Amino acid sequence: MQYKLLSGIKSPVDVKRLNEDQLADLAMEIREALFNRVGKIGGHFGPNLGMVELTIALHYVFDSPRDQFVFDVAHQTYPHKMLTGRAASYIDEEHFQDVCGFTDPRESEHDMFLIGHTSTSVSLASGLVKARDLAGKKGNVIAIIGDGSLSGGEALEALDFAGEMDSNFIIIVNDNEQSIAENHGGLYKNLARLRETAGGYEDNLFRAMGLDYRYVEEGNDIPMLIHALREVKDVDHPIVLHVHTQKGKGYKPAEEDRESWHYAPPFDRESGKPLYSRTGESYASLFADHMIERIRRDKSIVVVTAAVPGAVGLIPEKRNAMGENYVDVGIAEEHATAMCSGIAKNGGKPLFVTNATFAQRIYDQVHQDVSLNKSAVTFHLMSSSIYGMSDSTHVGISAIGMFSNIPGLVYLSPTNREEYMAMLDYSLDQNDHPTVIAVPGTAVKEAQYPVDRDFSKRNKFQICERGEEVAVLALGDFFDIGHETSDYIAKKLGKKVTLINPRFASGVDEELLDELVKDHDTFVTLEDGILDGGFGQKVAAYLGRKGVRVLTYGFKKKFYDRYNVQEVLEACRITPEKIWEDVIMTRR
Amino acid sequence: MQYKLLSGIKSPVDVKRLNEDQLADLAMEIREALFNRVGKIGGHFGPNLGMVELTIALHYVFDSPRDQFVFDVAHQTYPHKMLTGRAASYIDEEHFQDVCGFTDPRESEHDMFLIGHTSTSVSLASGLVKARDLAGKKGNVIAIIGDGSLSGGEALEALDFAGEMDSNFIIIVNDNEQSIAENHGGLYKNLARLRETAGGYEDNLFRAMGLDYRYVEEGNDIPMLIHALREVKDVDHPIVLHVHTQKGKGYKPAEEDRESWHYAPPFDRESGKPLYSRTGESYASLFADHMIERIRRDKSIVVVTAAVPGAVGLIPEKRNAMGENYVDVGIAEEHATAMCSGIAKNGGKPLFVTNATFAQRIYDQVHQDVSLNKSAVTFHLMSSSIYGMSDSTHVGISAIGMFSNIPGLVYLSPTNREEYMAMLDYSLDQNDHPTVIAVPGTAVKEAQYPVDRDFSKRNKFQICERGEEVAVLALGDFFDIGHETSDYIAKKLGKKVTLINPRFASGVDEELLDELVKDHDTFVTLEDGILDGGFGQKVAAYLGRKGVRVLTYGFKKKFYDRYNVQEVLEACRITPEKIWEDVIMTRR
Repeated sequence: MQYKLLSGIKSPVDVKRLNEDQLADLAMEIREALFNRVGKIGGHFGPNLGMVELTIALHYVFDSPRDQFVFDVAHQTYPHKMLTGRAASYIDEEHFQDVCGFTDPRESEHDMFLIGHTSTSVSLASGLVKARDLAGKKGNVIAIIGDGSLSGGEALEALDFAGEMDSNFIIIVNDNEQSIAENHGGLYKNLARLRETAGGYEDNLFRAMGLDYRYVEEGNDIPMLIHALREVKDVDHPIVLHVHTQKGKGYKPAEEDRESWHYAPPFDRESGKPLYSRTGESYASLFADHMIERIRRDKSIVVVTAAVPGAVGLIPEKRNAMGENYVDVGIAEEHATAMCSGIAKNGGKPLFVTNATFAQRIYDQVHQDVSLNKSAVTFHLMSSSIYGMSDSTHVGISAIGMFSNIPGLVYLSPTNREEYMAMLDYSLDQNDHPTVIAVPGTAVKEAQYPVDRDFSKRNKFQICERGEEVAVLALGDFFDIGHETSDYIAKKLGKKVTLINPRFASGVDEELLDELVKDHDTFVTLEDGILDGGFGQKVAAYLGRKGVRVLTYGFKKKFYDRYNVQEVLEACRITPEKIWEDVIMTRR
Repeated sequence: MQYKLLSGIKSPVDVKRLNEDQLADLAMEIREALFNRVGKIGGHFGPNLGMVELTIALHYVFDSPRDQFVFDVAHQTYPHKMLTGRAASYIDEEHFQDVCGFTDPRESEHDMFLIGHTSTSVSLASGLVKARDLAGKKGNVIAIIGDGSLSGGEALEALDFAGEMDSNFIIIVNDNEQSIAENHGGLYKNLARLRETAGGYEDNLFRAMGLDYRYVEEGNDIPMLIHALREVKDVDHPIVLHVHTQKGKGYKPAEEDRESWHYAPPFDRESGKPLYSRTGESYASLFADHMIERIRRDKSIVVVTAAVPGAVGLIPEKRNAMGENYVDVGIAEEHATAMCSGIAKNGGKPLFVTNATFAQRIYDQVHQDVSLNKSAVTFHLMSSSIYGMSDSTHVGISAIGMFSNIPGLVYLSPTNREEYMAMLDYSLDQNDHPTVIAVPGTAVKEAQYPVDRDFSKRNKFQICERGEEVAVLALGDFFDIGHETSDYIAKKLGKKVTLINPRFASGVDEELLDELVKDHDTFVTLEDGILDGGFGQKVAAYLGRKGVRVLTYGFKKKFYDRYNVQEVLEACRITPEKIWEDVIMTRR
């Protein structure tokens, strides 16, 4: 039986019963299970391969859930899930969907938080410490942070805060020498010096923050880890345990190319090749190629990423082609944003590309450092769409509500390739205002109507079809659904209705709406985002004075999780048939 | 003549012409001018007193604007403004209003950014460096950071990033041993060790971040500062100059009580007493006293602040009364928020109190660390109101749009004292969801209608008066204007109209609205916030299907700056007379 030990582990208590040889065998079985699941359905791979031994040692030494673990980002918790009653979800294909890719308290009492963003573990854990102490309770609180998360402001704030605490708090720095892409920032040089000197280097970041510190070189050696963890168990003050692990441990391709194997699609173990080839054009590839071309002609352009270049199409080959005009700041979104404002102030053309969910970190910087200062920064938002990442921690459908209401910022929603390229160029070439470009979450679409490349007149909507009675305003990548809807309604009504590409999500075309109310009594808005705070509500508020009917379509204000897109669309009535039903109902 | 030298300084060039004795005299004149302005109209005082000599030395050694200064928070730039052509605004009462309290590029080419939030200078300056280098230009870029800003995530991210840069970049750490209130966090212990050892302490935070480092003890000695600055001018790599200054320098009360004199109201120089006594109850004082009382009975409550306790009524006496149940994390809003989630997870009752403008830093943490995790954290937002701080950097009227659209979060807007207290207690006593309490920006008001203390049924609005035709929904501290408006309209119409206290800004009472549309054709919403993304738009979107008229009142989506409240209200038509005009117009 391939999973002789693992299949018998129902809780961490079972780990404690194993002897040293069995623990080594367990590590092998966990790696097999990682191959089994990730090879078939994909997932975070390198981080989990590196965490196998440390996770076993943690559960061997500590007593979860009395002792509380907080795993940063939590994409490295597959081994933890296997040891806390969820091994079947890695062994047995039928149970793959029982677990998500992150810790989740709904799955297990051993998962403290639902976490998917980086750099939060030390803060969250410090709160557990504070409440534990106030209640006079005991037990260890252990934050496990690594994979580039240390450079995030929230983590650094928390380390600084922890430096003043005075009770049990263990911070394990899982140092695998690698962020998601490269590590960036001076502190990673510090970690390297500390590794080279077995923790003895004189300028120690953690000690400088006021924290006690120990170094463990053998981060993939179970007995050594057990020893080291026993030494800090029940410590009476905050301490950092700096553990040197190997990302991708146990699979040569992943050990050698740590960036590519951070997250793996389904793959063949023998060859290391993906099972399904992804070819063809995407908005990410269009973006990368276009920016390389623009940088070739204009050295004032700066493309900025925060540790996730791969997720936005900037594979190493593309980044290298951008040379000095590409900057990866590491996990440091706030810094990236303010730096972009500084670049713009000195005549550069900065563009910050990230996923919408991670852009939630920069609300204040966009508001103050950028928009208040009228800095012409382009925010190139990927996955700001129901078609994007679908874990509740990563869904990007709050983007319109978050950014479109910031004064001075122009939020553009392209509907097709040509318009997307036009918006990108427009944004880079103007000096007046910050721009968000909400990159479509769909495949690349061709323009069905002439593209107006001028966006200098704010909030100027495009009339694609001019009809009467009903007007459909379909924003961004929901334009196609809007088009189908207007066709459907026209057919039902037996007359042409109006179809509009709003282009802007940050305001309404008052002039156009004033004209349309003359021969339209029903307005339909569609947007790929949560309705609250979004585009449709602006239209509804403007038209509220007119006494016409406005039907707004978008998503409910709730946390969507691992959904089927079509089901969500149906539930929100975002289909031509359902919208027609509503139009009929409200006109009665 | 009292300002013999200062009145002759039209630009930094004039500073360079002075000899050593004259520079010392200039420092005295600048202090006089600080007394003159702050004594009469109030302002940041201690930080500016401490910066006098450093500012003179900076302008003596460097060549602004070719050399570029970025002052963090920028509330310590009064001396800088005096030396860059704006001395009259400190000398001459008639010109006091010519300048704002922060750097502002609209005022001078020597001000790089409009800045009022902390911890942004190193990031902004790093962008200036990047663009300078790409353009092949020369000149020094100097970030000046201090007053507790170092502990902010954005600053720490930027220091880490700077540790990898390789061209001229000077970071001056103005170490005045004081945040706004106390300093908090381990790194301030590190600064203390560095001061004690004249920069020789072995674990050096800045070196650990990869930065070069020098220490200057005599931060209020002009010749020593000039020497130190000359040594780093034109440096070819990033360097930290750690300068020890004295907050409040030159005024004994401010040297001794650095917290109280951080920001001073108009005061008498001789006695140090404020010119106008502020007495009486405020929502801040109600809050402090109520929390002390609750903590006395319930040790699971934790009141968290981020460096600005004074601004929210938590003067030292009140904080001390809260003991261990009060935590000031220093400038570290993100950490504060996630820590609160951890406290809630382990059974505590956390409340984070800050100003709305600073809460812009925590959008992602509220969304992910708190709301996604269903942590019952109370966010007690002060100054989320047009009646609050009126500098464009500090206006809090984006709060509704920012927070009310986050899934799972309940946004409460009290209209009077009793309701405020009820909401505070409700929020602390439930375990289901995070809550924002938008504390009224007005003086404390008494309840005019019975207060329903139950907020467990989400989005349940209160009908205060039940009439017909017109319904006025007046949120939070705009309830009184709404009340006046409904009275005015009733009088004009000659019939009773409906007045509603929505209580919740995060949703609409669909049941109630469904009922009201039966005998109302006009709905008026009022809110103390920007309309876009706010409460009224939710109402308008819901009622859009009904074909009734909705008039939404709030502020325009723009950056308001040092405004007269009544003028803003008039411009936005938020008066009973103007609203009545609009009602009449739309009903024609």
